Amino acid sequence: DFAKMDMCREVRTGVPEAVFAEGKENDEIVKIVMKCADNDGIMVTRLQNDRYQSIKEDLSPLIDRGFKLNYNRKARILVVKEHDPKKIGKIGIITAGTSDIPVAEEARIVAEEVGCDVLRSYDVGVAGIHRLFSQVRIMLEEEVEVLIVVAGMEGALPSVVAGLVDMPVIGVPSSVGYGVGEGGFTALYAMLQSCAPGIAVVNIDNGFGAALFASTIIKSRIKREI
Amino acid sequence: DFAKMDMCREVRTGVPEAVFAEGKENDEIVKIVMKCADNDGIMVTRLQNDRYQSIKEDLSPLIDRGFKLNYNRKARILVVKEHDPKKIGKIGIITAGTSDIPVAEEARIVAEEVGCDVLRSYDVGVAGIHRLFSQVRIMLEEEVEVLIVVAGMEGALPSVVAGLVDMPVIGVPSSVGYGVGEGGFTALYAMLQSCAPGIAVVNIDNGFGAALFASTIIKSRIKREI
Amino acid sequence: DFAKMDMCREVRTGVPEAVFAEGKENDEIVKIVMKCADNDGIMVTRLQNDRYQSIKEDLSPLIDRGFKLNYNRKARILVVKEHDPKKIGKIGIITAGTSDIPVAEEARIVAEEVGCDVLRSYDVGVAGIHRLFSQVRIMLEEEVEVLIVVAGMEGALPSVVAGLVDMPVIGVPSSVGYGVGEGGFTALYAMLQSCAPGIAVVNIDNGFGAALFASTIIKSRIKREI
Amino acid sequence: DFAKMDMCREVRTGVPEAVFAEGKENDEIVKIVMKCADNDGIMVTRLQNDRYQSIKEDLSPLIDRGFKLNYNRKARILVVKEHDPKKIGKIGIITAGTSDIPVAEEARIVAEEVGCDVLRSYDVGVAGIHRLFSQVRIMLEEEVEVLIVVAGMEGALPSVVAGLVDMPVIGVPSSVGYGVGEGGFTALYAMLQSCAPGIAVVNIDNGFGAALFASTIIKSRIKREI
Amino acid sequence: DFAKMDMCREVRTGVPEAVFAEGKENDEIVKIVMKCADNDGIMVTRLQNDRYQSIKEDLSPLIDRGFKLNYNRKARILVVKEHDPKKIGKIGIITAGTSDIPVAEEARIVAEEVGCDVLRSYDVGVAGIHRLFSQVRIMLEEEVEVLIVVAGMEGALPSVVAGLVDMPVIGVPSSVGYGVGEGGFTALYAMLQSCAPGIAVVNIDNGFGAALFASTIIKSRIKREI
Amino acid sequence: DFAKMDMCREVRTGVPEAVFAEGKENDEIVKIVMKCADNDGIMVTRLQNDRYQSIKEDLSPLIDRGFKLNYNRKARILVVKEHDPKKIGKIGIITAGTSDIPVAEEARIVAEEVGCDVLRSYDVGVAGIHRLFSQVRIMLEEEVEVLIVVAGMEGALPSVVAGLVDMPVIGVPSSVGYGVGEGGFTALYAMLQSCAPGIAVVNIDNGFGAALFASTIIKSRIKREI
Amino acid sequence: DFAKMDMCREVRTGVPEAVFAEGKENDEIVKIVMKCADNDGIMVTRLQNDRYQSIKEDLSPLIDRGFKLNYNRKARILVVKEHDPKKIGKIGIITAGTSDIPVAEEARIVAEEVGCDVLRSYDVGVAGIHRLFSQVRIMLEEEVEVLIVVAGMEGALPSVVAGLVDMPVIGVPSSVGYGVGEGGFTALYAMLQSCAPGIAVVNIDNGFGAALFASTIIKSRIKREI
Amino acid sequence: DFAKMDMCREVRTGVPEAVFAEGKENDEIVKIVMKCADNDGIMVTRLQNDRYQSIKEDLSPLIDRGFKLNYNRKARILVVKEHDPKKIGKIGIITAGTSDIPVAEEARIVAEEVGCDVLRSYDVGVAGIHRLFSQVRIMLEEEVEVLIVVAGMEGALPSVVAGLVDMPVIGVPSSVGYGVGEGGFTALYAMLQSCAPGIAVVNIDNGFGAALFASTIIKSRIKREI
Ligand SMILES: Nc1ncnc2c1ncn2[C@@H]1O[C@H](COP(=O)(O)O)[C@@H](O)[C@H]1O
Ligand SMILES: Nc1ncnc2c1ncn2[C@@H]1O[C@H](COP(=O)(O)O)[C@@H](O)[C@H]1O
Ligand SMILES: Nc1ncnc2c1ncn2[C@@H]1O[C@H](COP(=O)(O)O)[C@@H](O)[C@H]1O
Ligand SMILES: Nc1ncnc2c1ncn2[C@@H]1O[C@H](COP(=O)(O)O)[C@@H](O)[C@H]1O
Ligand SMILES: [Mg+2]
Ligand SMILES: [Mg+2]
Ligand SMILES: [Mg+2]
Ligand SMILES: [Mg+2]
Ligand SMILES: [Mg+2]
Ligand SMILES: [Mg+2]
Ligand SMILES: [Mg+2]
Ligand SMILES: [Mg+2]
Repeated sequence: DFAKMDMCREVRTGVPEAVFAEGKENDEIVKIVMKCADNDGIMVTRLQNDRYQSIKEDLSPLIDRGFKLNYNRKARILVVKEHDPKKIGKIGIITAGTSDIPVAEEARIVAEEVGCDVLRSYDVGVAGIHRLFSQVRIMLEEEVEVLIVVAGMEGALPSVVAGLVDMPVIGVPSSVGYGVGEGGFTALYAMLQSCAPGIAVVNIDNGFGAALFASTIIKSRIKREI
Repeated sequence: DFAKMDMCREVRTGVPEAVFAEGKENDEIVKIVMKCADNDGIMVTRLQNDRYQSIKEDLSPLIDRGFKLNYNRKARILVVKEHDPKKIGKIGIITAGTSDIPVAEEARIVAEEVGCDVLRSYDVGVAGIHRLFSQVRIMLEEEVEVLIVVAGMEGALPSVVAGLVDMPVIGVPSSVGYGVGEGGFTALYAMLQSCAPGIAVVNIDNGFGAALFASTIIKSRIKREI
Repeated sequence: DFAKMDMCREVRTGVPEAVFAEGKENDEIVKIVMKCADNDGIMVTRLQNDRYQSIKEDLSPLIDRGFKLNYNRKARILVVKEHDPKKIGKIGIITAGTSDIPVAEEARIVAEEVGCDVLRSYDVGVAGIHRLFSQVRIMLEEEVEVLIVVAGMEGALPSVVAGLVDMPVIGVPSSVGYGVGEGGFTALYAMLQSCAPGIAVVNIDNGFGAALFASTIIKSRIKREI
Repeated sequence: DFAKMDMCREVRTGVPEAVFAEGKENDEIVKIVMKCADNDGIMVTRLQNDRYQSIKEDLSPLIDRGFKLNYNRKARILVVKEHDPKKIGKIGIITAGTSDIPVAEEARIVAEEVGCDVLRSYDVGVAGIHRLFSQVRIMLEEEVEVLIVVAGMEGALPSVVAGLVDMPVIGVPSSVGYGVGEGGFTALYAMLQSCAPGIAVVNIDNGFGAALFASTIIKSRIKREI
Repeated sequence: DFAKMDMCREVRTGVPEAVFAEGKENDEIVKIVMKCADNDGIMVTRLQNDRYQSIKEDLSPLIDRGFKLNYNRKARILVVKEHDPKKIGKIGIITAGTSDIPVAEEARIVAEEVGCDVLRSYDVGVAGIHRLFSQVRIMLEEEVEVLIVVAGMEGALPSVVAGLVDMPVIGVPSSVGYGVGEGGFTALYAMLQSCAPGIAVVNIDNGFGAALFASTIIKSRIKREI
Repeated sequence: DFAKMDMCREVRTGVPEAVFAEGKENDEIVKIVMKCADNDGIMVTRLQNDRYQSIKEDLSPLIDRGFKLNYNRKARILVVKEHDPKKIGKIGIITAGTSDIPVAEEARIVAEEVGCDVLRSYDVGVAGIHRLFSQVRIMLEEEVEVLIVVAGMEGALPSVVAGLVDMPVIGVPSSVGYGVGEGGFTALYAMLQSCAPGIAVVNIDNGFGAALFASTIIKSRIKREI
Repeated sequence: DFAKMDMCREVRTGVPEAVFAEGKENDEIVKIVMKCADNDGIMVTRLQNDRYQSIKEDLSPLIDRGFKLNYNRKARILVVKEHDPKKIGKIGIITAGTSDIPVAEEARIVAEEVGCDVLRSYDVGVAGIHRLFSQVRIMLEEEVEVLIVVAGMEGALPSVVAGLVDMPVIGVPSSVGYGVGEGGFTALYAMLQSCAPGIAVVNIDNGFGAALFASTIIKSRIKREI
Repeated sequence: DFAKMDMCREVRTGVPEAVFAEGKENDEIVKIVMKCADNDGIMVTRLQNDRYQSIKEDLSPLIDRGFKLNYNRKARILVVKEHDPKKIGKIGIITAGTSDIPVAEEARIVAEEVGCDVLRSYDVGVAGIHRLFSQVRIMLEEEVEVLIVVAGMEGALPSVVAGLVDMPVIGVPSSVGYGVGEGGFTALYAMLQSCAPGIAVVNIDNGFGAALFASTIIKSRIKREI
C-alpha cells in the first residue's frame, strides 16, 4: 500500500497547485495563497482585476520572502512562484476570435508555468481560411507538439484544424456566443460530435485544464525518452 | 377585405398541397389523398415504405382517373399529380454524409415538383475539403440559384459552403448523430450560430421546408423579371 | 487552386466587415476599427451606448481621414465608412412588438449598409390582425423583395406573414419573453416548426444575419439579370 | 372537520373515476375496473386497442350486471357505465390537424361522459384561415360555452382562436411534431407564452384534463344559476 | 367578411389595453400610454418602481385630462383610467408563500380593473394544511366563482386546492425557488402534470393572464344569463 | 493504511452484491451470478421476465449447490442466496399509484434481503387524502423506522407524507407520467424542491438505492445501541 | 380526525420555524420575524449581509424581550431564539472545496439549532485522497451518526465517502462550477446516479434541508430508544 | 497552395477509413465497403450483428481478393483489411462496469488497427478501490502510454484514474445509466467538470474517437523521435 502513496506523490509532481477564485472570498484567497506559497508556489485562476487589486497589498509579504507575483489581467490569473519551471516542450494555441483570447491566455500562462514554450495565433477564424492555413503551417514548421484550439459560437475551428494536422488537438469551447450559442454549449457539442480524427475536448472556458492536459502529453513523451 | 382573400389565394398558387404522414392512420391518408387529388395533386411526406405498400391498392383508382403516383422509398414521399410542373429555375443540394440522403431526397423531390431542376452532390463531407471545393465549383458553373446543404453530426458544412459562395444557403440539420449529437440539435444550433454570411436554417430533417423556401426565392425573382 | 482563392475573394465582396462587440474590451475594439477602416469601412454590432461614448474620442482621427461615424443607439451599432453603398433592392422589416425594435433596427442598418432600401412596419402584432393585413399589403404594393419578420414571445408572426405572401420570409426570433419564453427559444422553435411555406430562420436576436441573408438573395437575383 | 370531509365528497361528485392504463399490466386494469364498476362506472384512458382486445373477455361479466362497455379505438378510451350522464351544457373542440384527433377524441368522450354536448371541428389549421373563421362562427352561433383547441407543431391555433372569441379557450398541446417540435414542448410553450387574452393550458396530449376543466367551468356556472 | 370584423371588435371589448414594460425604454412607454389613454385607459405591467418614478412626471398631463393614475409597487403595475369598471363577479386568489405575492397582486389588480371583486388569502402554504382548509372554506362561503392559485418551489398548492373544490382552478407557477426550482419550471410542470381534476395553467409569473382568463369565464357566464 | 482497508471491508458487510442487468448480455449475467454466488449470494436488478426465463436453466446448478433462486416478475429482480438475512428493523413503503408498484417492489425485496420487515401501502394517492391519513397512521402505530415513498406524475406524495410524520422520508420519483412528466424529472424536481422537513431523494426509479439507504439508517441505529 | 391534528402538531415539534429571505422584501421579513419570535424563535435563511444590516435596527426590540439574535455572514442565516436547544446527537459535515463552505455553514447552524453537535471537515477534496481518509476516520472515531457531504463541480465526494462508511450520507450538491457544471446540476445528477450504497440527496445548495433530514434521523433513533 | 494539399494527405495517412453504419441502409454499406476496400481497407462501426449477417454474403468477393473480414459482435465493428498495421505503441483501456465493454471493445479494435498494443482492465469500478489501484499499477508497470477510461452512470472513474497517473487520460462517457443518468450526459458532464489534472473527453459512446486520439498522441511522439 505504500507504493500507492508513492505513486500518488510522484504523479502530482509538476502539476502546479491552483485555486479557482470564483465562490471564494478575498480573505480566503489570501489565506490559501500565503499558506501554499510556503512550499512550491501557487496559481489563482478566474481572479478578476478588481479583486486582485484588493488583495495585492495583503500578499506583498511574499515578495520579501523571494516570491514573484505575476498577475495577468486578460487571463485573470495570478502566479506566485520562486523559480521559473524548466523547459519541457513546445505547444501551439489558436483562437477563432478576439473574444476567445482570455481563455487562450489562461491556457498560455498555465502552460508556461509547467515549462512549455507557447506559440500563439489568435483570431484566425475571422480571416479567411487561407490565413488559417498559413498559421497552421507555421505551427508545423515550429514543431509544436500539441495544439490547443479555442472557439466559441459554432465551435467549428478545432475540427477544421484537426483535419489538417497529425498531432493531438485539444478543443476548448468558449462561452462566446448568443441565442442558441449562449454559454458555450453549441461550441462544446460541435467539438464533441466532430468527425475529425485526433480531437478531444475539455470543459467550456477551461484553458487551465487544456494546458494541463497538453503538458501531460509532453511529460509522458519525455518520460519515455529517458 | 376581398383583396385580402385574393391575395391569399394567389399566394398559395404553386405551393403543392402536402400532408405529413406521421401521426395519421392509413385510412386517413387514403381519404385525404383521394379528396385532394380531385383538384391539383398532392404530396405525402414521411410515408414509410411498408405504409405505402399497404395503401397502394386503395389509391389505384386515381391512376384510372389519369393521375401519376410516384413513390420514392429513400425520400419517404408519395407524389400524386396529373401534370408535370413548368420549370422555374435550378438549385443545388449538397449533403455531408450518406446518412443525410433521405432528407436531401425529400428536398429534391419537393423542389422538382414545384418546377426546379436539381443538381445533387451527396456525401462531400466524407471526402477531404478539396472534393467539396470542386463540387461547389460545379454548382457555380451550372449557375444554380440557391444551395440547400444538409448535415448532421456537428453540422459544420453549411457554414463552410456559405463562406465559399455568394448565393443563399439554406442549412438543413439532420438528426444523424449520437451522444451530444443525437436528434440533430447540435447541427441545428451550429448552423444558427454560424459566423458565415448568407445562411438561414429550417427545422431538423425538414427537406420539405427547405425546398419550398428555395422555390419561394426563385419565384420571387421570376415575378420581378416580368 | 488559384481559382478557389479568387472565388473566395469575389464571394466576400460586398459583405461589410463586422465585429461583434460583446466579449471584447474597448481598446480591442478601437484597435480593430482603426485598422479595418483603412480599407473599406467596418461595422461594430452589439455596442452599448455607454461603451460607444467611451471610445468615440479615440475614433475621432477617422473623421479627419474622411470617414463618417454613424452610431445608432437603439440598434447598438456603429458604422464607419467613406462612401454610401450603391442601391441593390428593397426589403421590408416587420416586428410583432415594440420590444423587438432593437433587433429590427440592427437588421435595417446592416441592410442599408449593403445597399437595400428598407420599408419598416413595427409593432403590428399588438394591433389586431387587420392592421397586419394592411401593412403586408403596403409591403406588396411597394414591391419589397424579401421580408424580415422579428418576433419574441410565442413567435407566431413570421408564420402568419409567410402564409400571406409569396416572397421569402426570414424569421428572426427575439429574446423578448418571460417564463417559458425567456431567452427566445420558444419563438425560435415555433418559427422552425412552422407549417407556413416559404420561411427560414436565423439565430435569436440576429438582425445582422437576417439582413445579410436578405441581401444575398437580392444580389443573387441581380447577378442573374446581367 | 366533518365539513371538510363532506366538502370533499361533494366536490368529487360528477368527476368520473378514471385510470391511466400506461404503466399498468392488463390484469391490474381488469381488477381495478371490476372493482370500481361496482359503484358508479369508470373510464380507462390511454388503453391501446390490442390491450383492450386482450382484456375484453375478462370484463364481459360486467355486461351481465347491466353495464355498458364502450371502447373508442381512436381515443384509446374505455368507458364502463350503467347510465348516461345528465346534460349540463355544450362545448366545442377544434384541432389544427388530423394527427391531433386522438387527443381531441379523448377530450370529446370524457366531456360527453360528464354530460356535455360536443361540437367538433377537426383539421381547421390545414385549410386557410378563412375556414377557421367560418368554423369559429358556427361555434359562436351554436352557443358553445367553452372551447378546447388541440394543436401540435408550432401550437399557434389556440392563440389565434382566443383572439377571435370571448369565451374561455383551453389549449391542449399535442405531441405531433418533429425536430424542435418533437414531444410537444414547442406547442406547449407557445400556448403558455401566448399574447392572446382568455387562454389557459393543460399538459401535452391531456385531452382528459381539458375536458374535466371545461366541465368544471360549466358545472360552476350551473351551481350559480340555482 | 364584415361580420368577422364585428365579431373581432366585440370580442375585445372589456379586455383592458395592456403593455409589457420589460424590453421597452421609458420614452416608448410614455408615448404608448399618452396615446392609448386617449380612448379607454391602459395598464402597464412589469413596471419597476424606479422606472415609474422616472416617467411619473411625463404622464401628469393625463391627470388634468381627467385620468386616474394608480401605481402599485408590489404588483409592479400602472393603471391609467377614467372610470371604474362595472362589477361582473367575484374571484379568489391564494398564494403558497409571501414571495408569491407580487404575482398574485398583479392578478388582483388586473381582475379588479375588469370588474371582479377579489378575495385574497396569501401565504397559506406556510401554515399547516388546516389553515388552508379554513381559507378554502371561506372562499366557498363567499361564493367566489374562480380560484387563482399562485405557487413557486414544488408548485403543489394548486393541485391540493383543485382536489378540494368544485370550481375552476387556474394555476400560476411563480419563479420562486432555487436549484432545480429556479425559474419556476418545476412548479409549472408539477401543475401541468397534476392528477387533480379541474385545473389549467398559465405561464410562469403570469398573474396578468390568469386574471384575464378568470374574467373570461365570468363574462361568458354572464352572457349566458342574459 | 491497513486500517483503511479494514474500515472498507467492514463497511461493505451486509450490503448485498448486486448487478444491474440493463446493458449486459445474458451470458455475462450468468457468468457474474455463477461466480458471485460462490460467496454470499447476489441480486440481479432490472432483469425482465423474458430474460430471466432464458437464463433460468443455466443457473440451475446453483440450486444443487444449496442456493435459493427467487425471481420477482413485478420487481424485475432475481435474488440468489443460501440463507435468509437476520432481522434488523421495520420500514414502510408507500406508492401514489398502481403504476409505481414495480419500483416499490424492487425496494421491498432489497429491503427484505438486508433484513428489514416491510409494511406496504400501495396506491394511496388515488384514494382521497383521508385514505392516506389512515395509512400513515398504521405506519406510525406499527412503528416503522423509515418511510420510502414512491410517486411519479407531479411527485407530491413524499412532501405530503413528510409533512405528517417525524421520521425520515426517502422520496423515490418514478418515471410514470407523460408530456412534461415523461421520464420522471417533474417528480424528481418536485421532491427535491419540497418545502417539507425531513425528506431526501434518490434517482428516478431507484427502489434499490432507497432500500439500501433505509437499511443504512437502521444499521447505524443498531450500531449505536450496542 | 382530532388525532390527525394532534399527530400533525407533534410531528412539527422541534422543527425550527424558518423563512427563506429571497423574494421577500425587508419589511416583510421584519414583520414575519417580529410575529414568529413571539412563540419559539425563528430562522431566516439566505439573508445577505447588507440586507441584515438594514433590518438589524428594526429587530432590536426583540433583544429587550430576551431574544438572542445571531447572524452568520458566511452562512447567510439569522437565528432568533430565547433558549438553546437540548442536545440530541452528533453529525459530521464535509465539503469538497472552500467554495462549498457557505452551504455547509447553513447546514451546521441549522443542525446546531435543532440540538446537534457538529464536527466539521472542510476542503478535503482539494487535498489528496489520503487527507480524506484521515478525516473520515476522525468522523468514525468521534461516532458521528450521519454525514452531510457538500460538493460542487463533478460532485464525486459524497459517493466516495458513502463507499467508505456505513452510516447515512446526505449528499448536498452546491452550485459551484462553470461551463457544464454551472448551477450545480452536474453535481446533483452525479450524486443521484451514484453507485455507492447509503446515499440520498437534497436540492442544490440546500444545507438547510440536509440538516433537517439529518436531525430527523437522529430524533427518530431517540424516539425508539425510549 | 500545393503544400496545403500535400500536408493534408500526409495528415490522413494512417487514419483508417471508417463509416458509421447507423442511418445507412445495408446496400449502401456494401457499396461503400466494396469501393473503399480497393485501396487500403475500411472499418464499419456501429454495425449490429443481424445487419452484419445480412451483408456478409455480399462482401465475400473481398475474401477472394485477399482481404480479411473480421467482425466483432461485442464491439459492433467490421474490419476489412489486407495487411496488419505496424506496431506503434501500447495503450491501456479501463472500464467501470461490464455494460461499458462494447464501447471499450470498439476502442480496442480501432486502436489495434492503427498499430497499438492494448492492455485491458474491464469492470474495475465494481470491485473496491483497491482493485483499481492494482490494475492501474499494472498499467504503469507495462508502460502504457495513454489510458482510455470508459464509464457511464456518475462517470467518476476517469477522474479517479487521472488523479493517480501522470499520463494522458481520455475519458469516454458511456450511455449506461437510468433516470438522471440516461443517455450518458451525467457521465459526460462529470468528466468535463472533473478537478483531476490530465484528462480530456470525447463524445458519449465514442470508443472510435478515443482510440484515434490516443493513436495521434503516440504517432506524434514517434515523429519527434525520428
Ligand atoms: N450581430 C452579429 N450577429 C451574428 N454575427 C455577427 C454579428 N456581428 C458580427 N458578426 C460576425 O461575427 C464574426 C465576427 O466575429 P468577431 O471577430 O469575434 O467579432 C464575423 O463573421 C461577423 O461577420
Ligand atoms: N389520460 C389521463 N390524463 C391525465 N390524468 C389521468 C388520465 N387518466 C386518468 N387520469 C388521472 O390519473 C389518476 C389515475 O392514476 P392511476 O390510479 O395511476 O391510474 C387519477 O387521478 C385520474 O383521474
Ligand atoms: N434555505 C431554505 N431551503 C429550503 N427551504 C427553506 C429554506 N428556508 C426556509 N425554508 C422552508 O421554506 C418555507 C418558507 O417559505 P416562506 O414562508 O416563503 O419563507 C418553510 O417551509 C421553510 O421551512
Ligand atoms: N463510431 C464512430 N464515431 C465517431 N465517428 C465515426 C464513427 N465511425 C465513423 N466515424 C467517422 O464519421 C465519418 C463517417 O461518416 P459517414 O460517411 O456518414 O459514415 C468519418 O469521418 C468517420 O471517420
Ligand atoms: Mg488530425
Ligand atoms: Mg456566402
Ligand atoms: Mg409564403
Ligand atoms: Mg379571447
Ligand atoms: Mg377540483
Ligand atoms: Mg417530516
Ligand atoms: Mg456507505
Ligand atoms: Mg493525471
